Amino acid sequence: MASDAALLIVAHGSRRAASNDEVRELTRRIEAISADHYDPVACAFLELAEPSIPDGLRALIEGGARRIVVVPYFLSAGRHVAEDIPGEVSLVLGEFPDIDIRIAPYVGLAAGIPGLVLDQAAAL
Amino acid sequence: MASDAALLIVAHGSRRAASNDEVRELTRRIEAISADHYDPVACAFLELAEPSIPDGLRALIEGGARRIVVVPYFLSAGRHVAEDIPGEVSLVLGEFPDIDIRIAPYVGLAAGIPGLVLDQAAAL
Repeated sequence: MASDAALLIVAHGSRRAASNDEVRELTRRIEAISADHYDPVACAFLELAEPSIPDGLRALIEGGARRIVVVPYFLSAGRHVAEDIPGEVSLVLGEFPDIDIRIAPYVGLAAGIPGLVLDQAAAL
Repeated sequence: MASDAALLIVAHGSRRAASNDEVRELTRRIEAISADHYDPVACAFLELAEPSIPDGLRALIEGGARRIVVVPYFLSAGRHVAEDIPGEVSLVLGEFPDIDIRIAPYVGLAAGIPGLVLDQAAAL
């Protein structure tokens, strides 16, 4: 089956390399379970790590993506989710107006979050 | 059935009141689905919002909790998860050495996270 779209997971980015590597590892795990639907799956960072959101989007477009779904890897809707991520995406939409880039609801809005919190409590 | 423990969901805290209210609303939703197992379910904030982690723990203890599970509502293991939350918890353990307080793995470690990211991509 041909993939529908490329997926870009956007995290905040950290001074701790291990935190950024955690996002990269998550990206690989997501790619492994979703290659039929999203291909490729990549990640980008708002700050403090590479690639930036515009660079991440440009790399996907240069690789042939025509449709990209951006998932903000954030638990709450602060300024980063409400303003900064849309601003960075708009920048690239200005350069490539024929590419379909959409921003999905951030992870904290997922219906599965309460269950996930309880899973972690039970993991003790 | 008697509840096993109290649950304290610990978030970073934000200058945006709406972000903090989102955590409080999540806390109510978790309490609604877990009252048999964790009771009460409360939240606390590392900074920028009330209650603080020590105050949140003290309120649970004063309410009768003898066992408390703390779930860090964070997606990655930065300094906040690795040092700040354990430090705040230790403070209260020093005051109440006979209370059993344990810190669960942070939310970003949950096995369900990759599926949740894909759920959000599909929500578009």
